[in-house]
Amino acid sequence: MIGIEPIGEVVGGRAEPIDDHWAGVEAEIRLDATRFAPEALAGLAAFSHLVVVYSFHKVGADEITSTARHPRGRKDWPKVGIFAQRGKGRPNRLGVSVCEIVAVEGLVVRVRWLDAIDGSPVVDLKPYMSGFAPRGTIREPGWAQEIMADYW
Amino acid sequence: MIGIEPIGEVVGGRAEPIDDHWAGVEAEIRLDATRFAPEALAGLAAFSHLVVVYSFHKVGADEITSTARHPRGRKDWPKVGIFAQRGKGRPNRLGVSVCEIVAVEGLVVRVRWLDAIDGSPVVDLKPYMSGFAPRGTIREPGWAQEIMADYW
Repeated sequence: MIGIEPIGEVVGGRAEPIDDHWAGVEAEIRLDATRFAPEALAGLAAFSHLVVVYSFHKVGADEITSTARHPRGRKDWPKVGIFAQRGKGRPNRLGVSVCEIVAVEGLVVRVRWLDAIDGSPVVDLKPYMSGFAPRGTIREPGWAQEIMADYW
Repeated sequence: MIGIEPIGEVVGGRAEPIDDHWAGVEAEIRLDATRFAPEALAGLAAFSHLVVVYSFHKVGADEITSTARHPRGRKDWPKVGIFAQRGKGRPNRLGVSVCEIVAVEGLVVRVRWLDAIDGSPVVDLKPYMSGFAPRGTIREPGWAQEIMADYW
């Protein structure tokens, strides 16, 4: 086992996990003031986007799939492995999202378009660097495009 | 604390952490055969790219920065917060990389351009979906582009 200690949490935004319509949601990421000083975020405001690694903390152990399932239970989409989809009921319950940085103020990063709910424990923050973007042509199945139709 | 159990590991690729020239490196991600069956990866081959969440397992506790530092110790680059850079000596020692999927074979994903070393514990795999790419214009400081000059 690897012990992970949250570095902070998401404050604001949505209170409940809802699948769709996350466009423009605003929230804050607040670093744990007992462990960090504002210098941990120094220079972050020079970046437009942030990678947030967080815990789907409201997912119960009985909601985790280790095999395959239809994304969102939609039988018209193929049954795919849990590592071929991004559902929250996954081993280790980790989410990775890219959002916009609105402002950095002390121990707080104000963000937009973060699809993590209020209270989510944050376990890492990384600046989005264009040099780490995927190289070459992106290929994905039809269901992966359909599932995004109302997401934002 | 959040307990994270590796779902598998990186096999092959580089044995030692080296900062640059990762282009085209090939490796395998092998799921833990005691906990997973091939159906956990069903449908993954329909995607071109994979998001890999892994542990920088060779980083010692004394190598972790919680404040600010010059990326790679380069004094000609600004001293920035650990959450404004992607160095491996960070709280929770988690890496997030996007790489190419070469093939999916049983419990193994063969990948290319993964900048994680041999033996890295993998804690999550997600398909790269274009709908989760950053929206709007990417902005980043000069050092973040310079640091990538020889990375790939």
